[in-house]
Amino acid sequence: MKRVTIVEVGARDGLQNEQKALSTGTRLEFARRLAECGVRQLELGAFVSPQWVPQMADSGPLIAEALALQAAGRFPRDVEISALVPNPRGMEDAIRTGVSSVAVFGSASESFSRRNINCSVDESFERFAVVMRMAKANKMKVRGYLSMCFGCPFEGEVPETRVVKLAKRMAALGVYEISIGDTIGVADPKQVKNLVAKLIKAVGARKLAMHFHDTRGTALANVLASLELGVRTFDSSLGGLGGCPYAPAATGNVATEDVVYMLHRMGFRTGLDIEKLISLNHWMTAEIGHELPSRLGRAGTPKAKAPAKR
Amino acid sequence: MKRVTIVEVGARDGLQNEQKALSTGTRLEFARRLAECGVRQLELGAFVSPQWVPQMADSGPLIAEALALQAAGRFPRDVEISALVPNPRGMEDAIRTGVSSVAVFGSASESFSRRNINCSVDESFERFAVVMRMAKANKMKVRGYLSMCFGCPFEGEVPETRVVKLAKRMAALGVYEISIGDTIGVADPKQVKNLVAKLIKAVGARKLAMHFHDTRGTALANVLASLELGVRTFDSSLGGLGGCPYAPAATGNVATEDVVYMLHRMGFRTGLDIEKLISLNHWMTAEIGHELPSRLGRAGTPKAKAPAKR
Repeated sequence: MKRVTIVEVGARDGLQNEQKALSTGTRLEFARRLAECGVRQLELGAFVSPQWVPQMADSGPLIAEALALQAAGRFPRDVEISALVPNPRGMEDAIRTGVSSVAVFGSASESFSRRNINCSVDESFERFAVVMRMAKANKMKVRGYLSMCFGCPFEGEVPETRVVKLAKRMAALGVYEISIGDTIGVADPKQVKNLVAKLIKAVGARKLAMHFHDTRGTALANVLASLELGVRTFDSSLGGLGGCPYAPAATGNVATEDVVYMLHRMGFRTGLDIEKLISLNHWMTAEIGHELPSRLGRAGTPKAKAPAKR
Repeated sequence: MKRVTIVEVGARDGLQNEQKALSTGTRLEFARRLAECGVRQLELGAFVSPQWVPQMADSGPLIAEALALQAAGRFPRDVEISALVPNPRGMEDAIRTGVSSVAVFGSASESFSRRNINCSVDESFERFAVVMRMAKANKMKVRGYLSMCFGCPFEGEVPETRVVKLAKRMAALGVYEISIGDTIGVADPKQVKNLVAKLIKAVGARKLAMHFHDTRGTALANVLASLELGVRTFDSSLGGLGGCPYAPAATGNVATEDVVYMLHRMGFRTGLDIEKLISLNHWMTAEIGHELPSRLGRAGTPKAKAPAKR
């Protein structure tokens, strides 16, 4: 399979970890530009408390507006817009916008679950079950995030068996895809291969997405390790938008353009346009007010006479 | 084989591509601190014209001083100090310092050879042959660099067959190791595997070192691809010191601490101390006057309770 799906999370995971909160209008323009780059899986907001996450405020109106533009043919219809819903309360808000795809967010670390989503892992799965029922009643797709799968800032190492068990449990709930997160960017390719091999056995490669942060530079190596085992879906963030709350000076999500550069050179197709992604990086740099960590955003594609391979 | 050799090139390839030229005293202190981090393969200078490369001026006195300290037991004796020699004239200077290990620098691209070292590839090999004879007469080891092996800023793609032919030619000259360079940081892991497989057939894995630049973020993925085929020697630069002259805003050599982080986590031994490398990154940041591109230098090792695996 030479086709890879990129799930663009810059407008959610990226922006929610930036100091500066962008206006709803700028976030909509960002979505429009991402779609122009070829993004077709677009997580656009989160139905979380604006008190805790001001960067995601007005995700309801934003998503409703994007969906309205889509219905009017003024935003590409084949872009799947989705939103994060932390709980049934957020799901109610999501349903009101008419969005047809949502994501739930769990953790492989008990301590992180309690600190980040204020409940135990078991309690979070009870909430997911309610969300799943609401989704079914409204014919919505649900994606599952499993965070801290390679290490936790509070617990240290996270046992593989726990990650595999929770991935199975998410699959049993009926999510269409499970995004396995290296939330603090500690994973190495050997660890990735070990875990991914077990996850493929447990839930199948087609249900897996890998979500790497480039905090310690290993993200593309971890993408490669996953590719070699058959994973074909990756989360990434335009420009590497979004920092790491557990290492303030460090970078967060792997940059979409860096992933796409490597994939295209290796002969994979993503449907994304790398030159447009680089232009969008420069646009976002001006909007967010600081340079983005993407390597490609600074270097550009090679200036050689022969073009980069597709 | 779980042992990987790191050839630290920050004091040469790194510093020669920095705008600011450090004093000879600071360069010596850098060498001393690198040795304290566990570096045992240390390229310390280049016998090039100070008119063209002022950053490498006084490489002679610097290396002579380091060797004198080593003889006096005030610098670790098991550190192999080496220097780049572009031609027989530079080799004469190297011999005068008493250094026992040197490196010659060639290119897989005809255009780059003419522009960078002012001669054709064939002429450069004639010079290498003279240097090899001088080395033999003085019982010195010679390493060979082959640059632009994955792409050239003037020629675009560089044929694999040309790289393999030149690597064989270097091996036939008697170099103990050939460092295969992605000088402008364009390579992807598939390309790396294709070329490395052919190079291993041609000269053997033990004679190969891979020299990646992280200009487009793919360096660690390329290290991984090389590791998987059996390469066990990598060049890197503390902090990712040194930019890319062909993309001014971009980064150059892959950072030593980033490579070492990934290798240690994967269970390889390097003999380097990662916390000391990070401290040295911070020291060099102050000396050179700007932040270094290494990811690990900003993020640090994971703050989890359990330590990173060795």
